[in-house]
Amino acid sequence: MATSSPSTKSSLQVGQTDSFATRHIGPSPEEIKQMLELLGLSSLDELIEKTIPQAIRISRPLQLPTAQSEYTALANLKEIASKNQIFRSFIGMGYSDCITPPVILRNILENPGWYTAYTPYQAEIAQGRLEALLNFQTMIIELTGLEIANASLLDEATAAAEAMTLSYGVSKNKAKAFFVSQDCHPQTIEVVQTRAYPLGIEVIVGNHENFAFDQPIFGALLQYPATDGTIYDYRKFIEQAHKVGALVTVAADILSLTLLTPPGEFGADIAVGNTQRFGVPLGYGGPHAAYFATKEEFKRQVPGRIVGVSKDANGKPALRLALQTREQHIRREKATSNICTAQVLLAVIASMYAVYHGAAGIKRIAGNIHQLTNLLAEGLKQLGYKITGEYFFDTIRVDLGSRSLTEILQAAEVQQINLRVFDDKSVGISLDETTTIKDLQDIWQIFALGEDLPFNAAEFVGVIHECVGVIHELPLHIPNSLTRNSNYLTHPVFNQYHSETELLRYLHRLQAKDLSLTTSMIPLGSCTMKLNSTAEMIPVTWAEFGKIHPFAPLSQTRGYQVMFQQLEEWLAEITGFAAVSLQPNAGSQGEYAGLLVIREYHENRGENHRNVCLIPQSAHGTNPASAVMCGLKVVPINCDEQGNIDVADLKNKAEKHSKELAALMVTYPSTHGVFESEIKDICEIVHSHGGQVYMDGANMNAQVGLCRPGDFGADVCHLNLHKTFCIPHGGGGPGMGPIAVSSHLAPFLPSHSVVKMGEQTGIGAVSAAPWGSSSILPISWMYIAMMGGEGLTEATKVAILNANYMARRLQDYYPVLYKGNNGFVAHECILDLRSLKKSAAIEVDDIAKRLMDYGFHAPTVSWPVAGTVMVEPTESESKAELDRFCDAMIAIRQEIAEIETGKVDAENNVLKNAPHTAETLITDDWNRPYSRTQAAYPAPWLKEYKYWPPVSRIDNAFGDRNFVCSCLPMSAYNE
Amino acid sequence: MATSSPSTKSSLQVGQTDSFATRHIGPSPEEIKQMLELLGLSSLDELIEKTIPQAIRISRPLQLPTAQSEYTALANLKEIASKNQIFRSFIGMGYSDCITPPVILRNILENPGWYTAYTPYQAEIAQGRLEALLNFQTMIIELTGLEIANASLLDEATAAAEAMTLSYGVSKNKAKAFFVSQDCHPQTIEVVQTRAYPLGIEVIVGNHENFAFDQPIFGALLQYPATDGTIYDYRKFIEQAHKVGALVTVAADILSLTLLTPPGEFGADIAVGNTQRFGVPLGYGGPHAAYFATKEEFKRQVPGRIVGVSKDANGKPALRLALQTREQHIRREKATSNICTAQVLLAVIASMYAVYHGAAGIKRIAGNIHQLTNLLAEGLKQLGYKITGEYFFDTIRVDLGSRSLTEILQAAEVQQINLRVFDDKSVGISLDETTTIKDLQDIWQIFALGEDLPFNAAEFVGVIHECVGVIHELPLHIPNSLTRNSNYLTHPVFNQYHSETELLRYLHRLQAKDLSLTTSMIPLGSCTMKLNSTAEMIPVTWAEFGKIHPFAPLSQTRGYQVMFQQLEEWLAEITGFAAVSLQPNAGSQGEYAGLLVIREYHENRGENHRNVCLIPQSAHGTNPASAVMCGLKVVPINCDEQGNIDVADLKNKAEKHSKELAALMVTYPSTHGVFESEIKDICEIVHSHGGQVYMDGANMNAQVGLCRPGDFGADVCHLNLHKTFCIPHGGGGPGMGPIAVSSHLAPFLPSHSVVKMGEQTGIGAVSAAPWGSSSILPISWMYIAMMGGEGLTEATKVAILNANYMARRLQDYYPVLYKGNNGFVAHECILDLRSLKKSAAIEVDDIAKRLMDYGFHAPTVSWPVAGTVMVEPTESESKAELDRFCDAMIAIRQEIAEIETGKVDAENNVLKNAPHTAETLITDDWNRPYSRTQAAYPAPWLKEYKYWPPVSRIDNAFGDRNFVCSCLPMSAYNE
Repeated sequence: MATSSPSTKSSLQVGQTDSFATRHIGPSPEEIKQMLELLGLSSLDELIEKTIPQAIRISRPLQLPTAQSEYTALANLKEIASKNQIFRSFIGMGYSDCITPPVILRNILENPGWYTAYTPYQAEIAQGRLEALLNFQTMIIELTGLEIANASLLDEATAAAEAMTLSYGVSKNKAKAFFVSQDCHPQTIEVVQTRAYPLGIEVIVGNHENFAFDQPIFGALLQYPATDGTIYDYRKFIEQAHKVGALVTVAADILSLTLLTPPGEFGADIAVGNTQRFGVPLGYGGPHAAYFATKEEFKRQVPGRIVGVSKDANGKPALRLALQTREQHIRREKATSNICTAQVLLAVIASMYAVYHGAAGIKRIAGNIHQLTNLLAEGLKQLGYKITGEYFFDTIRVDLGSRSLTEILQAAEVQQINLRVFDDKSVGISLDETTTIKDLQDIWQIFALGEDLPFNAAEFVGVIHECVGVIHELPLHIPNSLTRNSNYLTHPVFNQYHSETELLRYLHRLQAKDLSLTTSMIPLGSCTMKLNSTAEMIPVTWAEFGKIHPFAPLSQTRGYQVMFQQLEEWLAEITGFAAVSLQPNAGSQGEYAGLLVIREYHENRGENHRNVCLIPQSAHGTNPASAVMCGLKVVPINCDEQGNIDVADLKNKAEKHSKELAALMVTYPSTHGVFESEIKDICEIVHSHGGQVYMDGANMNAQVGLCRPGDFGADVCHLNLHKTFCIPHGGGGPGMGPIAVSSHLAPFLPSHSVVKMGEQTGIGAVSAAPWGSSSILPISWMYIAMMGGEGLTEATKVAILNANYMARRLQDYYPVLYKGNNGFVAHECILDLRSLKKSAAIEVDDIAKRLMDYGFHAPTVSWPVAGTVMVEPTESESKAELDRFCDAMIAIRQEIAEIETGKVDAENNVLKNAPHTAETLITDDWNRPYSRTQAAYPAPWLKEYKYWPPVSRIDNAFGDRNFVCSCLPMSAYNE
Repeated sequence: MATSSPSTKSSLQVGQTDSFATRHIGPSPEEIKQMLELLGLSSLDELIEKTIPQAIRISRPLQLPTAQSEYTALANLKEIASKNQIFRSFIGMGYSDCITPPVILRNILENPGWYTAYTPYQAEIAQGRLEALLNFQTMIIELTGLEIANASLLDEATAAAEAMTLSYGVSKNKAKAFFVSQDCHPQTIEVVQTRAYPLGIEVIVGNHENFAFDQPIFGALLQYPATDGTIYDYRKFIEQAHKVGALVTVAADILSLTLLTPPGEFGADIAVGNTQRFGVPLGYGGPHAAYFATKEEFKRQVPGRIVGVSKDANGKPALRLALQTREQHIRREKATSNICTAQVLLAVIASMYAVYHGAAGIKRIAGNIHQLTNLLAEGLKQLGYKITGEYFFDTIRVDLGSRSLTEILQAAEVQQINLRVFDDKSVGISLDETTTIKDLQDIWQIFALGEDLPFNAAEFVGVIHECVGVIHELPLHIPNSLTRNSNYLTHPVFNQYHSETELLRYLHRLQAKDLSLTTSMIPLGSCTMKLNSTAEMIPVTWAEFGKIHPFAPLSQTRGYQVMFQQLEEWLAEITGFAAVSLQPNAGSQGEYAGLLVIREYHENRGENHRNVCLIPQSAHGTNPASAVMCGLKVVPINCDEQGNIDVADLKNKAEKHSKELAALMVTYPSTHGVFESEIKDICEIVHSHGGQVYMDGANMNAQVGLCRPGDFGADVCHLNLHKTFCIPHGGGGPGMGPIAVSSHLAPFLPSHSVVKMGEQTGIGAVSAAPWGSSSILPISWMYIAMMGGEGLTEATKVAILNANYMARRLQDYYPVLYKGNNGFVAHECILDLRSLKKSAAIEVDDIAKRLMDYGFHAPTVSWPVAGTVMVEPTESESKAELDRFCDAMIAIRQEIAEIETGKVDAENNVLKNAPHTAETLITDDWNRPYSRTQAAYPAPWLKEYKYWPPVSRIDNAFGDRNFVCSCLPMSAYNE
């Protein structure tokens, strides 16, 4: 368009002024050019041509919506979110609305210092969240009355399933049946059933009050209070169960345990449950932290992670993950669980909720809810309703008698209130921390069905006010025999941070102890620690996503449905598959669900004899564990010297097991960081023997936009949304592990008995909530929406570039173990440190700990190959940061060289003594053969900004020998 | 209510489960008991009886709404906020909608690590925000083309007024008139007029194009681009002004300077403006950071604060506030400005916006807006409208010709669009960073008045798309002579943090350098560094408060109006006054406005000869400065040995100046931390001579709920909402300084010419926006709503308790300088360190710096009495924290004792060398006479958590001798 006025020319563009991709991707165009130069390449495309086999590359751009700016994407998602209706939900079933104390909301859930941290494998630089998790475990131990607890599990239902398999493993009575009370939450029963089936365990769902123990069982699951709110005394049942050698698991409402006798005190062997109501938003089902507590004798069988107390090199108490040898990545096919994560961020929130409120505060909250429930029941009785169940905590079941359920539900709809409806048309009402007198009045009004209340509501309120002001002694609807008398949360940590200022400082002290992505790169191979951008994180704490009960009617969750559908479509396009299930709420869950889908597919075709799962030796440890959980027999496949699958061996094994071949599990690009050129052939071999190909999506970040598993032969893959699609690691959880499948597998995707979804032929529920951890899915939605197909593809290219740049810069110092045909790695590379053991007595760990002195988190250590580190920079790191890391690694190599030449002692040196705390360096009697500055400031950037490890190297073995998984008395720190 | 079921009894309460007051107040009831015991008191009430003169105590509880929980208060305020309607505002006038990059939003504006920091007086522990401010100054210097810039001012209008007084002071032509272009923003003109009047300056508002310089002027103010968008070439005007010895100030749109020749390049002496559009939400008027740039020759006259570069004890570059002797608290009645603050938090945001976008990014944003404006104009021309002004940047003025303004405004209302209407019925449209093609289409549709667009809108869009993709060369509507050719933002800091990861880490590195309330208590006397709770802060970043233009019609801001009205009522009740004005946007502004109200009152009564203002010697330095700005003559009143006003002297002076007596300015409790028992008499004396009593509200935190200035004789007081009412200090701003007045003064409260408010008799506008920094008022609203009258009163009592507890614990080590009649202090206490100078050559600063080694921020140093520190703990600090601070002070006293006994060298000791950085302690050649651990870990808590000062003691004098107020070249750091 011409303008008439005199003017100068400009080269400015009209249109979008900011592109998110340039914010997400670390290196600038200029830096990319420099990096390509070092690699002797002329373009990113040339790099890709030399890295990814031509045969599998896609020839067209991803068909995704145009990239949106952060501002626009946030506006668009807000509009989608606004289609969700926030009703007051009195549904219960293990999920209760609650109040996230704002100080916790802002300083943990919305704080990248907490949510971008990695799993605390490098314990010395993770003391902050380890302490928070130890608080969590202490809280669980004290509230359940059991001896030990883990650092959380995914949800109550899977925790119950884990309790079943633990019971199965340790019970000595050889029974194959598991009793589940019909009074458990229905989604728990369903997940237990899903998990039992492939293992050949029979699940007996029955009435615990008249179960005659006439059939051998190895364990039982009870709900406390029952799903309809009733409080049962389970002592007799437990006694009988123990007599027949069965273990009893009690799924208990965590808040109720402040008033009720805890399971550990009435004989339960295991307690599981959800800690969501301790300050974690409902989030339409998750993420939340489930708990798992049991007796110390079972400590080696406890699924998931346990934080334990040990000491550091100076004898100072220090925390780390205990009993790591239990973890499935060590046990592989001997594993009984594939859980290799926790819900750290949520467990931290729940623990801080307890820290902030203390015992008295939490008891006050519980007591308030109980008394409101009490009052609610009284009012309903006066309205002529019968309340089933004499004893209750926060939930009552209302017998409608002759009243019309439809009318009541209509009245509730008008009030924007959700109630629970039982099969017998009775109605459940479950109160929570947010419930007010006004809510009670509204509920009474609903049940009055348009009539005036036959009592004066103000009178009820008057009673309450009187209670608050004067009486303080309302009777409890709790049997004497189940009234809690024991103390809990007595440790100082639960008693000294009750003012906001004190809690704020405690949170910041803990945060300052930890190294997160806010400090420096965390180049963890296979874990894809990329940017978790703020625009992606903002919607997570919108009420429209957070304040929705997982079993709210679908009519109220249209916003979520739109988001799910778009995300599913986008993930299907990215992977080349036909359908996606968002239900699996962790990568391990995705693996499990994917294999189960394959199993169901075979079974559906009358081939349920197919039970062999081929797994390359280089696979993630979760792979064989998942296969075992699906009742599959693991047959390992050899790898060649380059780390690639030995195709000949694959062929042999596939032929040998042709009739029983169920699946191949393969990671692509391989866990060795290489795009295997024969992946298409590999898939064809498996298919030719009737098997299905499961692709582990851990390395999807190397594929997006460049190749698609659905195209080159995989039948199903899971996606770690917390890796490739920007959900932060949260310090060790939450993750999300949706699965994508070809059309022939789509009918078997997970379904859910409470919320109708999926096909009739589906495998049932694998998670408690229908769409897993729904409230973090906006993160991945935002990422894809803001990147667009072009941005995502560019990101993949730069991820590969960054890895190759680092490999090239480091290869003269540390051999790069595996490369592709053209000498390039994929998105990560393995550095071989094995020779240093001989030449300088240096172990991988020494380098990992020395990196802390340089301000870095170590790469993945000794996996997939012992004695190596695996480096994955991701696309989000700038050239400056890559260079800084490479400089650190090179400097460390020079420190090692001084040992090799004998200049420096092999036992007493900067590596063996790493990490160096400020305290050890500032000691007055320095007697080490190297200088303090060598120890503290080996690189120039450290004088500008230094992250200080809070403890010296931790003694893992000591902690395992002296197992402690709850808070130490303060005296332990006083030395 | 009885229940029929068997049950146990419980002592649980029904009702609220959490009280915010218990979160806000640090000590627990148990701790309060212990503290009272130490003081030999039986109750808080006894403490108050012994502290506050009976005569002035109020006998009834504050009449405020019942305290709400955080959850409820947030819900209620959200409902109020939802009454605000978010229209798209194309009003301009110095305020533009913009995009706060989410990474900046979350990690600065919503991050207590940044917003709870104090003013950077203790520079060694404020290097992070000082660096951000230096970036700000560099950005302003480069964009304006001038030599120096300050660290920000309150708003564009007051900055213009400051420019006027600077010009008045430095111009040598002795003129008394100031020319203001009629094309300046109207609120700027008004504020300049308000400020000029009491100083006897004549303001000539005229057309700069035909001003003949026929009247002597000392200065002139021009708007660039003009308020209606027109770009004028001011070179000729400036030349003429300089010829007559006048200084020229250009109020310039900061973003336009990326495309336009900067004021410094066409001869302006001063440039001022708003940096709001650099990422700071509109917030219905503020807070934003205004800028002030000028020539180096005026550096000692620049109002406000300037960050300057100096070096630390090790010669390392280090930043601190430069030229502090300019500050009015030193100059008192010789001051020409009472500005003693900056808008640090907002300046930091604006600077980071530039850091994140860099020169190219900001230019792209400006270019995009300009081209959209260009396109908008073209479309309107095709619709038959005339655009006045040939050249424009982002704003055009549309001549409606024969069209109906009413119809256009109605059409705009339907589209939820705000336009500007000029007096001549022409319409202004101002575009911004958020403007999209869709917005243009909507605007065209409005101006088409229901007709179909006579051109194809898609065609226009097509042009744009073509521009983006192909042309890149739309002509600019900028005259050749004013096209910017010079570079800007060339320093590395503006070029290396363009990825989100890099910026995130930069922000966290800076944050980690600073000590804020997230670290430890900041016991600053007179500054009331209490908890800034998260629940108070959350609403600040709600769109309903943030996305509102200050000149949006009142019909769209009903939510704000409700909040203002409630807050005004509550503040009136708390102070005992009749009316409140929320306009003054800093304490200094409040003082100024309050005195102006008094002046206006006298004038209105025909007593404009009353021009004497009595001010006690102990007063804040702003007091005399404010009086001078109001054209008042300052007469100092002596204080007695106890720090109280010498009533006899007051009587004498009042009598002596009886006829001219305008006012007494008094701080209560006194700046010496004492409730003067004669305050009622003092007020009566002043009244008896026809004067008014202005109470400085700095110490209001000692009064709330216990006594009220309106009751005991004051006529007006200002309130530091950023002290008593929980607005965080933001690292040195924003604050808010509303004033409360008795009914006889109410008619004179500030008004505003753009938004009709206040009375006809009002003093006019003192701030650019009608309700000052509106978007931070929710903080104080939330505080009062959550505390209720009882909670506020309890807080005051505990504030006084905490101060007395500290005074008692410390008095054996440091004499407490002033106490009340019964031996108690008010909410703060002065510790006398003067004897230590003699006994150990220890200065106050040595103790202040040594406190950093203990992890603490120093109290107020050498104010109000040189050689002392003033400690104000506030109610939010727990006993544990008070004890920790007292322990530190006592330990330091013991360190001093070792100097006194000669055991330790008087020049080379832990105090003189404080603070100790990690780097200095880890040096390999330690040659100090004390040990490293003595230096670093003098207290047990430091081994658990140590805050490390990033630099050693800073050499202030060096920096002032070698004045640099912009970023150093990187080479300066390379040594």
